Amino acid sequence: MFKAIHYSEVSREKVENEGSKGITVRRLITREDGAKNFAMRFFELEPGGHTPLHSHDWEHEVFVLDGKGSVICGDSEADITPGYVVFIPPKVKHCFRNRAEQKLSFLCLIPNKK
Amino acid sequence: MFKAIHYSEVSREKVENEGSKGITVRRLITREDGAKNFAMRFFELEPGGHTPLHSHDWEHEVFVLDGKGSVICGDSEADITPGYVVFIPPKVKHCFRNRAEQKLSFLCLIPNKK
Repeated sequence: MFKAIHYSEVSREKVENEGSKGITVRRLITREDGAKNFAMRFFELEPGGHTPLHSHDWEHEVFVLDGKGSVICGDSEADITPGYVVFIPPKVKHCFRNRAEQKLSFLCLIPNKK
Repeated sequence: MFKAIHYSEVSREKVENEGSKGITVRRLITREDGAKNFAMRFFELEPGGHTPLHSHDWEHEVFVLDGKGSVICGDSEADITPGYVVFIPPKVKHCFRNRAEQKLSFLCLIPNKK
């Protein structure tokens, strides 16, 4: 079904995965919206927050909206600021870190069929 | 392969589809990056610009980055500003319009397997 909503209207959930610190997620577009192929999520990392250094069988497509941080992927590391686009291939260890005193926020999209 | 790049480093192409006006696209994440499931594109609409009122068999997942506009989808219409999230289901006629005197920019993601 058609949906047009401001991201701030979508409820924010704390991410409690092992290795996560200071992260919330808003599930902007989900399977429940009729999105069969991929899901759009909005992540916010507090200062000092990070995602776990982990890998999985699916890719990430990321667009950075606010803040400053870094991304590790395999043997590579890159600084990220608003407007940065990141592609994390399947099966490669990766991690996002907030490196600033303000929130780091980004969109992260994943396939719905893992 | 891992990719981390600012969107402005991705070349901008004019969109020349019938019914399009004043649109450019940057193809941020494509199949060539190894993105098998879905593609991330960055659209900019000039003041007065619009996409065609059309439908197709695949969905759109949109996040508005800058500007002010509107989206028509079927019998619905909504105003869009930065932070708006839009889901356009498959097979429904839709159109994006820039309603302001500045550029309207948004991410639009689509499945790669249509």
